[in-house]
Amino acid sequence: MEKTKLKAFLPLFYLVWSDDLLTYKELTALREFIDNQPWLTEEEQSELLANINVANPPSREQLSKWKTEIEEAIQALPEAKDIFDISVWLSKNNKTIIDLEPVFSNLELTLGLSGEEALSQFKTFGNTFTSVHHTASSFDTQKLTEILDGPYAPIIKKVKSVISRPEFAYETSTEIEVYREKVYQWCKILADENFGNMAYPKAYGGGENIADYFAIMETLSYHDLSLVIKFGVQFGLWGMSVMFLGTEKHYKEYLKDIGSLKLPGCFAMTETNHGSNVKGIETTATYNHDTRTFTVHTPHLYAQKEYIGNAARHGQMATVFAKLIIDGKDYGVNAFVVPIRDKNGNVLNGVTISDCGHKMGLNGVDNGKISFNNVSIPKDNMLDRFASVNEAGEFESPIPSDNRRFFTMLGTLVGGRIGIPRSALSAAKSGLTIAITYGDQRRQFGPEGGSEVPILNYRMHQRRLIPLLAKTYAMHFGLQYLTNRFLQRTEEEMQEIEALAAGMKSYVTWSTRDILQECREACGGKGYLSENRIDALKNDTEIYTTFEGDNTVLMQLVAKSRLAEFRKTFEKMDSLGMLNYVYEQTKTVIMQKNPMATRKTDEAHLLDDTFHKNAFEYREKVILASAAKRLKKLIDGGLDAYDAFNVAQHQMLDVAQAYLDRLMLEQFQSAVNLIEDESVKVILGKLKQLFALSQIEKNKGWYLEEGYMEPVKTKAIRKLVNQLCWEIRTDAVPLVESFDIPDSCLAAPIAFL
Amino acid sequence: MEKTKLKAFLPLFYLVWSDDLLTYKELTALREFIDNQPWLTEEEQSELLANINVANPPSREQLSKWKTEIEEAIQALPEAKDIFDISVWLSKNNKTIIDLEPVFSNLELTLGLSGEEALSQFKTFGNTFTSVHHTASSFDTQKLTEILDGPYAPIIKKVKSVISRPEFAYETSTEIEVYREKVYQWCKILADENFGNMAYPKAYGGGENIADYFAIMETLSYHDLSLVIKFGVQFGLWGMSVMFLGTEKHYKEYLKDIGSLKLPGCFAMTETNHGSNVKGIETTATYNHDTRTFTVHTPHLYAQKEYIGNAARHGQMATVFAKLIIDGKDYGVNAFVVPIRDKNGNVLNGVTISDCGHKMGLNGVDNGKISFNNVSIPKDNMLDRFASVNEAGEFESPIPSDNRRFFTMLGTLVGGRIGIPRSALSAAKSGLTIAITYGDQRRQFGPEGGSEVPILNYRMHQRRLIPLLAKTYAMHFGLQYLTNRFLQRTEEEMQEIEALAAGMKSYVTWSTRDILQECREACGGKGYLSENRIDALKNDTEIYTTFEGDNTVLMQLVAKSRLAEFRKTFEKMDSLGMLNYVYEQTKTVIMQKNPMATRKTDEAHLLDDTFHKNAFEYREKVILASAAKRLKKLIDGGLDAYDAFNVAQHQMLDVAQAYLDRLMLEQFQSAVNLIEDESVKVILGKLKQLFALSQIEKNKGWYLEEGYMEPVKTKAIRKLVNQLCWEIRTDAVPLVESFDIPDSCLAAPIAFL
Repeated sequence: MEKTKLKAFLPLFYLVWSDDLLTYKELTALREFIDNQPWLTEEEQSELLANINVANPPSREQLSKWKTEIEEAIQALPEAKDIFDISVWLSKNNKTIIDLEPVFSNLELTLGLSGEEALSQFKTFGNTFTSVHHTASSFDTQKLTEILDGPYAPIIKKVKSVISRPEFAYETSTEIEVYREKVYQWCKILADENFGNMAYPKAYGGGENIADYFAIMETLSYHDLSLVIKFGVQFGLWGMSVMFLGTEKHYKEYLKDIGSLKLPGCFAMTETNHGSNVKGIETTATYNHDTRTFTVHTPHLYAQKEYIGNAARHGQMATVFAKLIIDGKDYGVNAFVVPIRDKNGNVLNGVTISDCGHKMGLNGVDNGKISFNNVSIPKDNMLDRFASVNEAGEFESPIPSDNRRFFTMLGTLVGGRIGIPRSALSAAKSGLTIAITYGDQRRQFGPEGGSEVPILNYRMHQRRLIPLLAKTYAMHFGLQYLTNRFLQRTEEEMQEIEALAAGMKSYVTWSTRDILQECREACGGKGYLSENRIDALKNDTEIYTTFEGDNTVLMQLVAKSRLAEFRKTFEKMDSLGMLNYVYEQTKTVIMQKNPMATRKTDEAHLLDDTFHKNAFEYREKVILASAAKRLKKLIDGGLDAYDAFNVAQHQMLDVAQAYLDRLMLEQFQSAVNLIEDESVKVILGKLKQLFALSQIEKNKGWYLEEGYMEPVKTKAIRKLVNQLCWEIRTDAVPLVESFDIPDSCLAAPIAFL
Repeated sequence: MEKTKLKAFLPLFYLVWSDDLLTYKELTALREFIDNQPWLTEEEQSELLANINVANPPSREQLSKWKTEIEEAIQALPEAKDIFDISVWLSKNNKTIIDLEPVFSNLELTLGLSGEEALSQFKTFGNTFTSVHHTASSFDTQKLTEILDGPYAPIIKKVKSVISRPEFAYETSTEIEVYREKVYQWCKILADENFGNMAYPKAYGGGENIADYFAIMETLSYHDLSLVIKFGVQFGLWGMSVMFLGTEKHYKEYLKDIGSLKLPGCFAMTETNHGSNVKGIETTATYNHDTRTFTVHTPHLYAQKEYIGNAARHGQMATVFAKLIIDGKDYGVNAFVVPIRDKNGNVLNGVTISDCGHKMGLNGVDNGKISFNNVSIPKDNMLDRFASVNEAGEFESPIPSDNRRFFTMLGTLVGGRIGIPRSALSAAKSGLTIAITYGDQRRQFGPEGGSEVPILNYRMHQRRLIPLLAKTYAMHFGLQYLTNRFLQRTEEEMQEIEALAAGMKSYVTWSTRDILQECREACGGKGYLSENRIDALKNDTEIYTTFEGDNTVLMQLVAKSRLAEFRKTFEKMDSLGMLNYVYEQTKTVIMQKNPMATRKTDEAHLLDDTFHKNAFEYREKVILASAAKRLKKLIDGGLDAYDAFNVAQHQMLDVAQAYLDRLMLEQFQSAVNLIEDESVKVILGKLKQLFALSQIEKNKGWYLEEGYMEPVKTKAIRKLVNQLCWEIRTDAVPLVESFDIPDSCLAAPIAFL
């Protein structure tokens, strides 16, 4: 185009041809515009139209020439507000053009090219604030590691040094038998290091230190999880069932050999027909007065023991749960040790073992099914701490109720419900370490003219990973609390601690599932390659939400326990009216404390521990009172309790969830309060705030429904969550480094770019 | 106890010893109570206390005797309201006891045993309404299958008959090479059946029927997903890149052999450093004027082609995307066919191929990395539909902008973005069929005295699976719409259809991920066994959210396209003020239509199509306008566009999500409207309502924030979601049977109990 004034069209022409969002529709609009401008001569119109002829598009060179001219204009006009400013400059401030501002602006609007945004397509910034964000540690990672490890640092260090040895290199064979054998050999090494018998009495070669045993489980979980489960089956489920359900004679006979792995064994509770409803198992152990033996028998196919770890390949004995029958009378579920293989690994007569086959994960564990065809065992094989058959062949027990005895037996095994979430926690830490380290290095896309940007600088990527990092820290402290409560337990606290363990097991394993899912996606295709280990972490922990008690079932137990506590706290619960009163009271008391709080959005308030604590407690209490009210109403209305609980089942899960959220927050807050190092305290303080606010954000629907917050507040919280993610991002890598996971365990190449 | 009046204590004694929730604390409370009753003689007190002596608990027989007495009382008093009523009856209406009602009630409260709920512990109902719920089909499944299959019934039937043959028995070997070979052989059978070339021109042996090709992909996806992906790589990615990017000479040369699998090939686009940002790839194809060849070269390790299907084992050629260089000048990304192996499978000189190794899933597909060391190919190997090098060695293209040309090329490959979600849909259907069939049969727990109940009768189980079943139906109709739009596409619609495909691909693959996760957990331990196939379904589809475009990246493209549309629709978008106006207008117009609607909770309204449609549209429009406003504000405030989009990235995803939700609902609604069979229409109508309401429930926080609904309404919706789940449960099994998945494909033993 020769005429200067026509240059005003250059930016439009360029964008029409280059922008991948403009379509033929816009070309037509532009053509019509040119046709309809009275200030253009016919000749000028033809000249312009020639530039937007689909049959004869401008050459690549032409396009690039236009761009150069436009870029010149932009450099000359740093204050340009829209494309029209550029058009004017290109026309050399042609008066006609200047006067046409409304007309051009209108056209630009039609083309969707108005304002600075359209202009930005020509700017070459390079250094945006998104692209310059980067890792910059604000604290000493070693100090944080010390805080996390606490008094267990020595045993953690010892375990790490063992699993970092060359013989612990990961098994890559896809052959199940090769993998199982490797895991078995690893277990032997761990037994030789006295890790397996850590919890057993010193009298039987043990370390008498259950706290260290948990720390071992957790640390081993940075390594192969089949190893952890195999280890847990042998030394935890098998060994501890003997320890907690048996008596002196059993300890003497078995504990030392279990601890050294000389006697591999199983924990045979679950049956095909009875997974969650363990009370319903059908295997029988019938007492024979004459021979003073029990006959262990599987009455039908669906009563076989299923998913039993150590069964398919290595187990020589099993703790078998069976209904005790004496003289035709059923004395409820009791436990017996039953030999299943000889020393050479041959399955014994009367015992049938089959392999569960390939699983989604944990293929290094030899799960199998066991059934018994009238297998005879001596009377002494009954694990008789809570019940026994006396010399006269009569049933004896200090706990008369079968039900109560059964739950007391199960209660002694609560340790498993602590070991599993602690193992899950380590898997979550591994996943986050891999995904966050990768996100800090992996670059993709970037500002026009600039280099590509680490994907962890993208807000969505932060949103996906950093609140989960905060939650992982919360769970770390939550599980420490659970462990301490367990270690210092008294008889009266047992029911509370059992509910706590059941709840935390569910909370942590579900969270781990979500965390590893995000980690996989955050690592894209790399996350799908087995070499980067998210595959194994994710698939191995997948079953954690099911075994040691199905999470949904456990959460209902937690809710029931909360409801029972509630009834005890509020004495006058005999009428619905009173319950209503308590419910309203609960709400009012908290709300009245600070009536303006529902609309309060200043940062100091939103970041305040007390606000968080109140919000979590309010949710916990109101949901609990409301569930109690609902159940009462349903039952008073004639529903039987079973139906009523089913109708309100969804609410039951909320009761448990809110309780656990509050516990996690409480523990995170007190842990941060105890930190002495200032810079560690600051960063963990932010994580704690992020945990609190992202949980509130997740439940904003509830808070709004209850009128505890108004929209202006929930919106401010969303913004603050984004902001905290952005701020914490610079410390994200140091925060995962503080987990101090051995390189050989992480192993993922993408974690070492 | 001899004295009749003391029998009033029986129920309390029984519960203290039997109930697993009562603790020593309650025992103490009961002891103190007895100690403090002036109406009891000292002797009577001793007698009572003897029954709650921890050191000497009642025998099992004693407990059982108590229970029998209490049960007698309950049968005699069907109207009993609480435990005290029973106590009175047991005391034979002793006057002293009757007068003590307040005192006893108070004790019962303290023990948490007040009201009918406590009483229910003695009742033996057996038949609760929860336990009698069961499958009862309300419609003809075959009719529904016909509606789902529509015009594709013949090809679907044909594919099903092929994959049900004995040679398609699943491969169970964990050996990668065995599995890969099996998948390759299966592909050959499918090629022989003319499934592979279904979309190719008839002139080259094809079926010229892309619609059927999609139906083939979808139906094959009931079988092994490695097979589907291998099939898609060969006939879709490799074959269709030749078909859409090449010209006549390429068709003649390659298409027939590709369709028959005589020429296995790859689609080599992704590079290690450039997954999502494909425009940034670094492989070069340099034109040599003298020899009229291109030199294809990988400049460094991170520019190697990665994750390429068919590369590690079988591929002989590849469509390679590379920057075209002529005389030192870069002409953007173009496509070339490059031989990589000879007929005997030997890798050619200059080509280096390595194996991606074991993956989380899809191990029957031989993904590999390819790099080129100055590999020479003839000029004709450039796929030259959109750009070519002319006889004079000059670059020529009808599309001058490199950017636009690149996106036009990619646009022709949009079919992949339709095939993937349709494949995912089948996987979701398989998972739901397995989990729902199992849930209908598997029994666990039950009312006191009754038999165990199918787990699908539990509300949480319904909540977990049935809304996902509804969503699966919604997605089925949504993907049919996408396919039809694609089949009837015009040039002007292409950008919209590309965005639609990108969005649906993300929506459906993310949903499939969630669906299969719930299915796994819903099947408990059985879901973890590979034989039940959720393992494969889940792990194979895991990468669907990443490949063919990372979902998070695609959703942002969708949002950008929605924003561009928005700008075009509202012309006067030049000022923030105007945008604000439009935003408020959008909200007001809808709200004013029916100001009472925010509080309306009658069922007719909540179940109404128009209410659902309005709510979804409102959400879509307000989120879009609000995102536009936010971006404008950020950019006007001086942020560069790149930063602004990053700050608002979270909102971008909401924009896309709300758009897709609305589309899915719209398609579900119109599909149901077209159904003629009354009973099918009724059940799909319920599913459609459930889909709408459960999505609204999921977004209730947003609706409450915006004031579009008040708490009373969102709470009513939650209740209705539960109710719909309960109602649909009786048809849940027929609804998955209507998917009509071949038994041999489902294969899971738990789906055939």
